[in-house]
Amino acid sequence: MAEAARDNSQLNRPLVCKQSEQAAGNRRLDFSVAAVLPAGGSGERMGTATPKQFCPLLQRPLISITLERFERVHWIKEIVVVVSKQNFELMNSIIEHYGHSRAIVVEGALTRHQSIFNGLKAFVVNQPHKSWPEKPEVVIIHDAVRPFVEEDILLRVATAAKEYGAAGAIRPLVSTVVATNPEGYLDHSLERAKYRASEMPQAFTFDIIYRAYQQCTDYDFEYGTECLHLALKYCGTSAKLIEGPPDLWKVTYKRDLYAAELIIKENLSKSVCIFTGMQEEAVQFGCFLQEALQLVMEQVDVLKWSLNKESQCIQAISSGLYYNFICINVHLSNLEPAALCIRMEDFTNIRELAKEANQKNILVYRLLINYTQDMNEVQESAKQGASIIDSLTKQRSPALTGQLLVV
Amino acid sequence: MAEAARDNSQLNRPLVCKQSEQAAGNRRLDFSVAAVLPAGGSGERMGTATPKQFCPLLQRPLISITLERFERVHWIKEIVVVVSKQNFELMNSIIEHYGHSRAIVVEGALTRHQSIFNGLKAFVVNQPHKSWPEKPEVVIIHDAVRPFVEEDILLRVATAAKEYGAAGAIRPLVSTVVATNPEGYLDHSLERAKYRASEMPQAFTFDIIYRAYQQCTDYDFEYGTECLHLALKYCGTSAKLIEGPPDLWKVTYKRDLYAAELIIKENLSKSVCIFTGMQEEAVQFGCFLQEALQLVMEQVDVLKWSLNKESQCIQAISSGLYYNFICINVHLSNLEPAALCIRMEDFTNIRELAKEANQKNILVYRLLINYTQDMNEVQESAKQGASIIDSLTKQRSPALTGQLLVV
Repeated sequence: MAEAARDNSQLNRPLVCKQSEQAAGNRRLDFSVAAVLPAGGSGERMGTATPKQFCPLLQRPLISITLERFERVHWIKEIVVVVSKQNFELMNSIIEHYGHSRAIVVEGALTRHQSIFNGLKAFVVNQPHKSWPEKPEVVIIHDAVRPFVEEDILLRVATAAKEYGAAGAIRPLVSTVVATNPEGYLDHSLERAKYRASEMPQAFTFDIIYRAYQQCTDYDFEYGTECLHLALKYCGTSAKLIEGPPDLWKVTYKRDLYAAELIIKENLSKSVCIFTGMQEEAVQFGCFLQEALQLVMEQVDVLKWSLNKESQCIQAISSGLYYNFICINVHLSNLEPAALCIRMEDFTNIRELAKEANQKNILVYRLLINYTQDMNEVQESAKQGASIIDSLTKQRSPALTGQLLVV
Repeated sequence: MAEAARDNSQLNRPLVCKQSEQAAGNRRLDFSVAAVLPAGGSGERMGTATPKQFCPLLQRPLISITLERFERVHWIKEIVVVVSKQNFELMNSIIEHYGHSRAIVVEGALTRHQSIFNGLKAFVVNQPHKSWPEKPEVVIIHDAVRPFVEEDILLRVATAAKEYGAAGAIRPLVSTVVATNPEGYLDHSLERAKYRASEMPQAFTFDIIYRAYQQCTDYDFEYGTECLHLALKYCGTSAKLIEGPPDLWKVTYKRDLYAAELIIKENLSKSVCIFTGMQEEAVQFGCFLQEALQLVMEQVDVLKWSLNKESQCIQAISSGLYYNFICINVHLSNLEPAALCIRMEDFTNIRELAKEANQKNILVYRLLINYTQDMNEVQESAKQGASIIDSLTKQRSPALTGQLLVV
């Protein structure tokens, strides 16, 4: 049991650096807020067998990344995830596996609106357990497949909902919108400047959205897609529309998964820790490398710890301050000019360490430097090394972690 | 001059494999077709200083990739690229540099519609040179920043335009579209199923679109975005709307550049050539590696050429059949169990070769195998090697080409 808990805490490691996590506000609101995340989509547009909300990004399902974002916002109390019946157990296991302590799963229905309504009912009808709190004053509705939502826009829609009853994020249209006639010809086109794309998150006072859903017709449930529309139609509440940032976009096609993965990778490649060991040449090279890497990364630290003291490495890795570690080995070419030699046991040790660190999305690489007496050459090698490290940390390939790279 | 021409032919190497290029049809149409590519955008949504059409993807500007796609379609005769005044010289140099022989540049204007009109005028008014042909029967209009357009959809819009006067590609809406009132509240939302996103390419009989532009008001030129709308408004031509594939999407945000680059990389990582040299163990390992790679790649060939005969390497690289080369080196651990040694000159040679190949977007890697007598271990190494190669070819980092990787 204790072992399972430790395992969870590792897997629950957020896909953001601790530094940026600490920057998140500790804001308190004077009204209660909860969230409903519809996650019932089948992912047919993705062209993959796995629905997109369960597709892994850096070994973690997309829905878990979205949940992590919500859990970093302390004023959102409960998060109800609505999934289809066949994914109910899967979702529960994701919640347990990644330790999403504020989330519960509710079974959805055939359509999006019915699923959201089921999610809302969890607050008033189907109390999941005794400790589950009363219905919130404001409820945020957000797609499980929009993982890059920030606290700022959540706060803006929640407070606007408290004031106006309903609010939603919008974005400019990327394409013109056209109406087709039944024969497949252009009927008319809309003037792009007058319309907006309705995105997520949206927020409502609980009573307004719940009342709207209670009055919904079968047609609304079947064909409707827009919660803001229901609040207007059944409660006369005209939602406040709020221009959101571009990263609210919805992971819809396979290319969106590509982009999402790269955005997460970019976040994790902003800091690096260089282990030099105590050898003078390695320390010097480490400083050159730091200088070159600082041009492309936000934080580059050099630690002179001995490479052999693996426990120190493991300690640094466990600190959670870095996602990337570089160990420097030096080959002194004046002593052995004809060949580069690496001891087999050096290989095996670092590989094992890298394999373990990789479980937490931490990358470990080794650079072998061909160290000459010519300082210009060494600096040139440092530049080359920096470009290799930059590329490796941005691409974050588990297959390459633990590798020895030669400059 | 001859040297410049050779240089061009290298840079002009298409970002598709020759195999798939050969599969492209040699269709002929019984009407003439040309294209206009508006490329005047400032890229403000991208958040970068460089307008997106000039952003490099695998060292080639996006506009050049789109042009390459058009030039692979033999029945499109001329391609007019419309750019802003300040990018006129840049665009001409791209055309020269990448050898886009069927493209010419025309200076645009302040708005999209005015720019397209300028592009059309090139066929009737401003004949750029004597060899420039008569106006085409059908003209395709396509955004420079939609690089993944295929012959199929170009053919479908062109033939529909010939038949109906106008045609355009459409896609389902990803988000609901809402109308805002002047105070920033929801006015109404559109029923998503009744509308479509109007994408590109579009096509028109030349006379219809030209006539439409001649009648345009200042308001149309200033605020309009939709060519299909003009054909309807001024010529009464209701465009045929054609459901296009998802890869027509427009590179708008930085995340779209990420996705576009990954799509191109995926295309280039489908085939690989393994050089084993003549050493028995290397040949055997090469076969194991081939087996493991065939699970993730379409084409994996093993060549037993000697590694020392660099001219053979260069010849294979120049053949244009592969984008990825793996050279296998073997370390016999029964002879030298304690350390891996690599001759310095082996390093330097392959690095030079890799650097040159990289100019053509071809990657060269070396795998150093720790070869034991245990066949299971060797097969395990081959699997590990395959996962390294798969990752390297998909990520295509120039910083890593020429590297020696150890399994």
